[in-house]
Amino acid sequence: MALVSHTVAPDAFGPAVALSCRECGARTPLAPDFACVECFGPLEVAYELPAGDPEGLRKQIENGPLNIWRYAPLLPVSPDVAERPSLNPGLTKLVKADNLARELGVTGSLYVKDDSGNPTHSFKDRVVAIAVEAARTFGFTTLSCSSTGNLAGAVTAAAARTGLRACVFIPHDLEAGKVVMAAVYGGDVVGIDGNYDDVNRFCSELIGDPAGEGWGFVNVNLRPYYGEGSKTLAYEICEQLGWRIPDQLVIPIASGSQLTKIDKGLKELIALGLVEDKPYKIFGAQAEGCSPVSAAFKAGHDVVRPQKPDTIAKSLAIGNPADGIYVLDIARRTGGAVEDVNDEQVVDAIRLLARTEGIFAETAGGVTVGVLRKLIENGVLDPAAETVVLNTGDGLKTLEAVADAARPTAVIRPTLDSFREAGLA
Amino acid sequence: MALVSHTVAPDAFGPAVALSCRECGARTPLAPDFACVECFGPLEVAYELPAGDPEGLRKQIENGPLNIWRYAPLLPVSPDVAERPSLNPGLTKLVKADNLARELGVTGSLYVKDDSGNPTHSFKDRVVAIAVEAARTFGFTTLSCSSTGNLAGAVTAAAARTGLRACVFIPHDLEAGKVVMAAVYGGDVVGIDGNYDDVNRFCSELIGDPAGEGWGFVNVNLRPYYGEGSKTLAYEICEQLGWRIPDQLVIPIASGSQLTKIDKGLKELIALGLVEDKPYKIFGAQAEGCSPVSAAFKAGHDVVRPQKPDTIAKSLAIGNPADGIYVLDIARRTGGAVEDVNDEQVVDAIRLLARTEGIFAETAGGVTVGVLRKLIENGVLDPAAETVVLNTGDGLKTLEAVADAARPTAVIRPTLDSFREAGLA
Ligand SMILES: [Zn+2]
Ligand SMILES: [Zn+2]
Repeated sequence: MALVSHTVAPDAFGPAVALSCRECGARTPLAPDFACVECFGPLEVAYELPAGDPEGLRKQIENGPLNIWRYAPLLPVSPDVAERPSLNPGLTKLVKADNLARELGVTGSLYVKDDSGNPTHSFKDRVVAIAVEAARTFGFTTLSCSSTGNLAGAVTAAAARTGLRACVFIPHDLEAGKVVMAAVYGGDVVGIDGNYDDVNRFCSELIGDPAGEGWGFVNVNLRPYYGEGSKTLAYEICEQLGWRIPDQLVIPIASGSQLTKIDKGLKELIALGLVEDKPYKIFGAQAEGCSPVSAAFKAGHDVVRPQKPDTIAKSLAIGNPADGIYVLDIARRTGGAVEDVNDEQVVDAIRLLARTEGIFAETAGGVTVGVLRKLIENGVLDPAAETVVLNTGDGLKTLEAVADAARPTAVIRPTLDSFREAGLA
Repeated sequence: MALVSHTVAPDAFGPAVALSCRECGARTPLAPDFACVECFGPLEVAYELPAGDPEGLRKQIENGPLNIWRYAPLLPVSPDVAERPSLNPGLTKLVKADNLARELGVTGSLYVKDDSGNPTHSFKDRVVAIAVEAARTFGFTTLSCSSTGNLAGAVTAAAARTGLRACVFIPHDLEAGKVVMAAVYGGDVVGIDGNYDDVNRFCSELIGDPAGEGWGFVNVNLRPYYGEGSKTLAYEICEQLGWRIPDQLVIPIASGSQLTKIDKGLKELIALGLVEDKPYKIFGAQAEGCSPVSAAFKAGHDVVRPQKPDTIAKSLAIGNPADGIYVLDIARRTGGAVEDVNDEQVVDAIRLLARTEGIFAETAGGVTVGVLRKLIENGVLDPAAETVVLNTGDGLKTLEAVADAARPTAVIRPTLDSFREAGLA
């Protein structure tokens, strides 16, 4: 890989001390690397976290900024990160969903962690914010990614705020709205004549080419840093519950990275004494049309067989999820499960969440709420326990999914007679 | 008007003590009324605010919830409002816009108050949240409004969360996306075969009819309460600046209510000793295609002559703004101004804000940023002073406005050669 020459300040990555291989455990210095040189396993960030004074750390966090940077002591970022330009994502609402609970027969507390409240309205702002910090530290001047939509907009928006150049790659036949969302922030948005796999393959080639020198691909060569952003979901949920881990979490699976990092975040909070150690169950949610992890879980397999995605939940449509095997491990270890719902159930769940809680979720949120409902019906998830379900994006981005189901009740003339005739009085 | 019988708890409206007429000053008890019986002038909420202990009040606010209910002591809501279901809008980001400042030649501090971060992504969530409280207090069971889009979704979403029935009225030929946004939350969305004026007229008829009994129309019979929600923008801006009033504010004008209530909020903060008394200038922003207030300001008139709106800034397209004359008075009294920009300047400003700060504004945000630019170019707004410009909504809701201007840079084959040929390397 073409590396940029750079000098990294000693505290540039805060408590992060190395990259370590998830497969063989080999360690390597913090660099824009993503695969182990020993075994080609995925690299992740390893820390020396600030243990020993949980009360002081908790206070520091609570007095921090109202965004993910309050957790800077637990992230691969420098301690002064909050002072630099950033979209400042995070600290989204944890909504007590009493109406939804009632409809689902949940008797315990039910919460929706609603990440549609992020700056570009998806959880991607969290991961991109950390990747931007790494890009800056490594001296990259262009921020890039392969994307099917949400990520492209999150990257171009973050680049705009932070003064980096953006050049993002998307399949050329994406929905017009997603192209607008990516292009409006002023970076280069390049349509690739091919599908998402072609886009990915091209990006891997570009990283190895001189043309890609100085480029930080948030989901390729910056992936280890990027992935850590998902830990903040775990931190926020626990802090918002009053520094407590919920009994059950329902999390969507695309690559599976988000789910594994949330588990990592929970374990860190326990290790640091910020929350009490207690059992928790993690449930993974997929769409039936792209359910390789769910299929493996149900079949009792340790490997994940790739699928060709065909679902309206496009932001979860990764047929060969990189972290699929880790997800299986976590679901089994914690006593959770992986389940899937079909497109009709996804739309029903979007509407259910909207009409009970006033939260308009993107299709990925329909997947998690639909799976929550199915797990309760099947007796897999305990309705009496405390449960958090994630909504990772905004319904405005996937309007077409519910357009047929969300129509006017009636069209009338502007008269009281017409109003009465329509049976609305 | 058909009134619902109800008993109002003594502290149901917190520090609010009456409705008072803006024209003749006549007072009337807190009720679902909106016009003075003496002179037909508009009614607004009058308070006995908690003066005498600014330090204690400031602490109370700072320790309050992370939404508008932290300002409950200054709003017409009961002290325990934060404990009830609500979309909990507010405390949106105040973004230090250094990149935008540089492009505009602003040498003082420039901030964007970004209200796209609200639950349904517009400032309407603030005003509706207060109206919902009033509806509950008055015993209304159906929440309603006339709307051209944003408000309908804010009302149906809030009704869903709070367990009220919603029945909202929109012109039948609204953009599909806005209909989906309103209908997905499960209330009745009624298309009216007519324009927005017809919708309004119909709603006024319905209020006076038995069919409308028990209905709270947020922007008609609950309007005095509804309007107070905009004060929270003033409170938040000042608190986020460290309890300080900025030198200059640029605020969009639709009915003009938001601008007048922000001024009211600033004056309250001064009266309570929460901020230092200092001069500030308020600038109003309109689209050229609907600029009745701007036209009156420039002509030196005291009256506002209605216009027939024709602009892409549809959320500001009120041709006969109810609070227009009060806006003129505030702009003149504070040494501000009212200015307008054409649709092309609106689109340019949306793109400018997006590429400099990573904020994708709806057309109303393009109007304020465009007017800010024009006021600086014309030497009307001081570039060396501290300035706050409002973005009241989300670009995702008015995608079509920038669709032509926000396109991919290039479409290429997934090869490095094709990449180089496109001149992107
Ligand atoms: Zn290895
Ligand atoms: Zn009067």
